Parts: sequence; C-alpha cells; structure tokens
Amino acid sequence: MSRAYNFNAGPAALPLEVLEIAQRELTDFNGTGMSIMEHSHRGKAYDAVHAEAVANMGKLLGITDDYQVLFLQGGASLQFAQVPMNLLGQGQTADYINSGAWASKAIKEAKKVGTVNILADTSKDIPTTLPDFDALPYTKGAAYVHVTSNETIAGTQMKTFPKTEAPLIADMSSDILCKPIDVSQFGLIYAGAQKNLGPSGVTLVVIRKDLAERAPETLPTMLQYRTQMGENSLYNTPPTFGIYILMLVTRWLLEKGGAAGIEKINQAKADKLYTAFDNSGGFYKGTAVKEFRSTMNVTWRLPSEELEAQFIKDAIALKMSGLKGHRSVGGIRASIYNACPAEAIDALIAFMADFQAKNG
Amino acid sequence: MSRAYNFNAGPAALPLEVLEIAQRELTDFNGTGMSIMEHSHRGKAYDAVHAEAVANMGKLLGITDDYQVLFLQGGASLQFAQVPMNLLGQGQTADYINSGAWASKAIKEAKKVGTVNILADTSKDIPTTLPDFDALPYTKGAAYVHVTSNETIAGTQMKTFPKTEAPLIADMSSDILCKPIDVSQFGLIYAGAQKNLGPSGVTLVVIRKDLAERAPETLPTMLQYRTQMGENSLYNTPPTFGIYILMLVTRWLLEKGGAAGIEKINQAKADKLYTAFDNSGGFYKGTAVKEFRSTMNVTWRLPSEELEAQFIKDAIALKMSGLKGHRSVGGIRASIYNACPAEAIDALIAFMADFQAKNG
Repeated sequence: MSRAYNFNAGPAALPLEVLEIAQRELTDFNGTGMSIMEHSHRGKAYDAVHAEAVANMGKLLGITDDYQVLFLQGGASLQFAQVPMNLLGQGQTADYINSGAWASKAIKEAKKVGTVNILADTSKDIPTTLPDFDALPYTKGAAYVHVTSNETIAGTQMKTFPKTEAPLIADMSSDILCKPIDVSQFGLIYAGAQKNLGPSGVTLVVIRKDLAERAPETLPTMLQYRTQMGENSLYNTPPTFGIYILMLVTRWLLEKGGAAGIEKINQAKADKLYTAFDNSGGFYKGTAVKEFRSTMNVTWRLPSEELEAQFIKDAIALKMSGLKGHRSVGGIRASIYNACPAEAIDALIAFMADFQAKNG
Repeated sequence: MSRAYNFNAGPAALPLEVLEIAQRELTDFNGTGMSIMEHSHRGKAYDAVHAEAVANMGKLLGITDDYQVLFLQGGASLQFAQVPMNLLGQGQTADYINSGAWASKAIKEAKKVGTVNILADTSKDIPTTLPDFDALPYTKGAAYVHVTSNETIAGTQMKTFPKTEAPLIADMSSDILCKPIDVSQFGLIYAGAQKNLGPSGVTLVVIRKDLAERAPETLPTMLQYRTQMGENSLYNTPPTFGIYILMLVTRWLLEKGGAAGIEKINQAKADKLYTAFDNSGGFYKGTAVKEFRSTMNVTWRLPSEELEAQFIKDAIALKMSGLKGHRSVGGIRASIYNACPAEAIDALIAFMADFQAKNG
C-alpha cells in the first residue's frame, strides 16, 4: 500500500499503527468471534475498552478527581448549545472571545440561550491574530468565559489562556492533547474527536464535576451533563467503535510519551514547515501573526490565486491531500495533527521548494 | 475464525460480508492511500459513500420526494427530545402510546416540552401486549401521535399502525427495515442504527419535509431538523465511518431483495424459534401475546430463575451471546435482527432441545 500524505483538517490522519490493529481485530475482537462493533455496550469486552479509554484520557490530560471524562455525540457543534444550556443561568452573562469562524458559531448558539458579552473580536483580522487576554473587559460574576483554543480555519492557536474568575470553557477540538495543559485552569473542555483523537462521531467533554449541578432539571435528559456523568457515558448506547479507535489512539499517545512527548514532535514538525515559508523570500506568506501560529493548522498564501490552485493540483498528483484552505478564506492550509507523520512534512517541504523553483 | 452466535439486543450482529469488506478497506479505501475514517467529510471519496447511503436508504424504504433521509447523532434517546422540541408547539398536545420501556422514555422527554396525552398504557402488562388502535381516545388537533413500533425489552411488535389524522411519528429503532412499510403513513420515523442498520453512533431520521417548518428558530441550530435537511446531513461533521458501514449494510440488504426479501427470511427465523418453544410442552413460555410477537426480539421464560441462569451460562459455553433478558424484566431474550443468520437460530433451537432434555 502506498500511504497518502494526509493534511486533512478533520476527519484527519490517524496513526497507521492504530488502523492496522483495528483492521486485524475487525471481524474478531480478542477471540470473541465478533467485531467490537457487534458487542453490547453493557458487555465485558466493550466495558474494558470503554474503561481504558476513560482512564487513558484522564492520564494523558492529568486530571484530578474533581473532573470527569465524558464521551458524547454531536461534535463541538452540539456543545456550542449544550454549554450555555447547562451553564448559563437566567439573568447571567457569558463572556466569549471571538477569535474566528468556530468561536463565532459558539457565540451564535449561546445568544439563543442567554446574554453574551463579546470580550474581543479578532475574527475578521488579517493577518489572523488573537487579543491580549490581560486587557479584556471581563464581566463581573460572569457565568463563564469561553475560548476557542485553536482556530482551524484562521491557523491561530492560544499559547496561554486567560486567567479568569469565572470558569473557563474551551473548545479544543483542533488542538486537544497536542501538548500538556493544566486542566485545573478550566471548568469545561470539549473537543470533537476527528482531529487529534479518533474518527468523527465522538465528542470528548472534560468537566469539573460541580458545574454540572447548574443545569435546570427541565432540560432534555440527554442534554444535561449530569445524565452521562452518573452513567459513565453509558446512559444510552455510546458510539462504541469510535470510542474503541479513540482508546487505541490514547495508547499510541502514551507510547509517544503522552502530551509532553507529542508536543516535542509537533513543535519540530511545525517549526520545519514555518521555516520553509519564512525562508522562501516572500513566495510563501503565512497568514497568522507569528506569536499565535498554530502547531496544528498551518495557513499560508502564494503570490496569486492561480498559483494556489496550481499548487493544490500539483500536490494532489503527489498524493498530498487536504491542502486547500477553507472555502471561506482560500489560500493553503496544512493540518498537521498529532498523527501526521514527520515524513509528510518533509515531503511537503520538498514539494514546496520544487514548486517555487518552477513557478517562483 | 470461529464466529459467535450473536443474539445481542444492540449493538448487534452485522453481516459478516460487510465486516469483511470494511476489514479489507480499513487502511486503504479505494486505493486512496487512507482509511475512509481519515477522509474529509467534504471530499470526493466520502461524498460518494454518503450519497449512496442516502440513496440506498431511500430505495429500501420506498420514499417519495416529499420525504428526506437524515443521518444524525445521539440515538433514539436524543430523538425522544428532538421530536417534541421541533413538532410540539405551545398550547398543543401530543398523543403517545405507552407500549413499554422505550415508549415510556419518549413520553418522559415529551412532557418536558409540552402537553402529553397517553392514549393507552400497556407498559406493565404481563404477558406483554399492545392496545387496539381503533379504540383509542385520540386528541382532536394533536400535534402528532407517537408510537414505538417494536419494544426491544417486551418483545412486542406492531403489525399494523394507527390510522391518525395527526402526523404519525414512530421510533423504529429495533425493527427498521425488517419488512416493507408504507412510509407515507408516517410524518417522521427515527431509528438508532445499532440494531438493523450498522454500528452505534448513527441515527436514521426519515422526515416529511413540511413538518420541519414547525420548529421555532430559537431552538439550538443542531436540534432543528431543518438545519441538517438543508445540508444533506453535512451541516457539521457526520459520523463518517458509521455511515460507511450503514451504506455497506444497505447494499447487503438490496442484495437480499430489499425489505420484502429480508422479511421472508426474518419471518422464517422467527417462526422456527417461536414454534420451538410452543412445542416444548410449557418448558419454554413466550412472554408476549401471540398476535404481537416480535420478529426481532424473541422473549421467553423457563420454569425457574435458576434454570434461566443455567440456560444463559450453558449458552455462553456454546458461544451464544446476548441471551439474557433485559435486567428490568429478566428471562431470556434472543435478538434476531436482519443480520442474525439462520444458522444461529438453528443452533439455538438445537441447544434449547438439548437443555430441556437435560433439565426438563
């Protein structure tokens, strides 16, 4: 098999080792004579998978007993609504930083539930950037402060987080577990799995347990965090195969040295790629300000849209996929999540040099 | 590999042919050099899978242009809330038939949204049964009438459906596509995939398009049916791998002659099993009244709970899994969904005769 260079923004590359294990076990999980997909979510075989996924995730994130790991459905898009439905009480205000397309979507849903205060809006800034967290007009007694740790489209990433009195809520869909974080800074973290954790269809939520008590009992049972907290994410049938793959990814991450181990690998990958376009004499121009450049989604422009189209076309011929920037902004984007191997970066850099030599 | 006899209630048996295709393609889908799990939900490879899943489902159900097939997340448990949130307007009443554990859960969620009228309650009846649809006190001008077509725990199945003025809504999680149905009888059908359609984590919704317009725009975007209707279930990242498996299952069903073809196979399987306990001289006793016996979930008792425990234990030794009745009712349950092969039924019947000879 000739493996493609996968720069997809999500769903994205998975570790080949993980896929190979899943392939071997697909029709017969652990000698049980059936696929993990065919096992009951209340049976022993799946139970061990589920327990290991929860335990490994807790270990990788370094969480304490006052936090709980949940595996939900609906992606970050459903969390945009579920967070305010659970945490934004009547008469309260939630603070949001609008850092780009994904933060904007979160804000739109929060406004349906209650009062939203926009602390800063950098969503239209070019080059893409982030605000100074120390200079923001935080609401006294806010229900929470919401941030988007990495803007997949803009290519910006928070290198620090605001220090807030109110619980800090973070959408970490596109950079969860790319580096160590101090979970105790946060009230709640959520992330769609399809970038750094596994296939689409699983949503990670890490919640400080006391916050779940804020939700009104009148909320639909499935939309209250406490429902799944009381049942270890097994109130209803979870996406068992997705959680199985996620469990294999957590094992792979632990083998890589956990969040600290993968951070070194990620930083080296990102540095190489950013250096390549910084050294291109202006042919390749990064779209994010340097201090907030994402180690996960690397975005840049070429001198013209025609050259960009040619670049993407030539890349596809070399089995490099996913390099087209998001339709809302154009340009080039390489998503280089945890599972994107260093060889893919090297191949991309070699191609960039080649392309510039021919077209520069 | 020695394949287990899988009588799980859900997640449940999948066609071995489907698993084998998925296994072959798992690391390299159609020569693309990546897994279907790693493909973008907006790329060509996944797009073809998604389009085929939608088209095959429409064909298998025989739907007309005024209906739309959606693939959502959250299972029937989220639909219990989403249906009334979208369809039960202020001041309106929704009629529900309480036929068992699953209908009861749907009713609980609807009551959080608006006024519910219970048309009949057979949920506690032993033997398990269903009401006479023609004798029910339907609400004049009801928002809708809700039924559960097959009660997985009780082992009852609706053989006909109420003829209602209000749109008929059906939870068909445990018998969708086990036989032909006339979709034009229904306003909305929903089903978790993990029994007859694929792995857990995908929810099928078939909606009569005009009904989506009832939803208030103030609902969270992700909870409005119209959101996914306008985007062919691609408003946000769908559970791509689950939909891929579901697509393979729809292909398999079409090869079996569609809903009419699988109905014959299902009926033969169910008849054999029911006959086995009807001919056991009272050793095995069915728990559902004969006219509503489910072709999907076959439930019965033995003379004592001790014998039931022994039966389940002996069955496990023969690689027969999932025969323990639901913890809320006890007894024995064999879930014999579309993908449960006739050989499994034969093996079970042989074991039952053997067990009775030894213990009867």
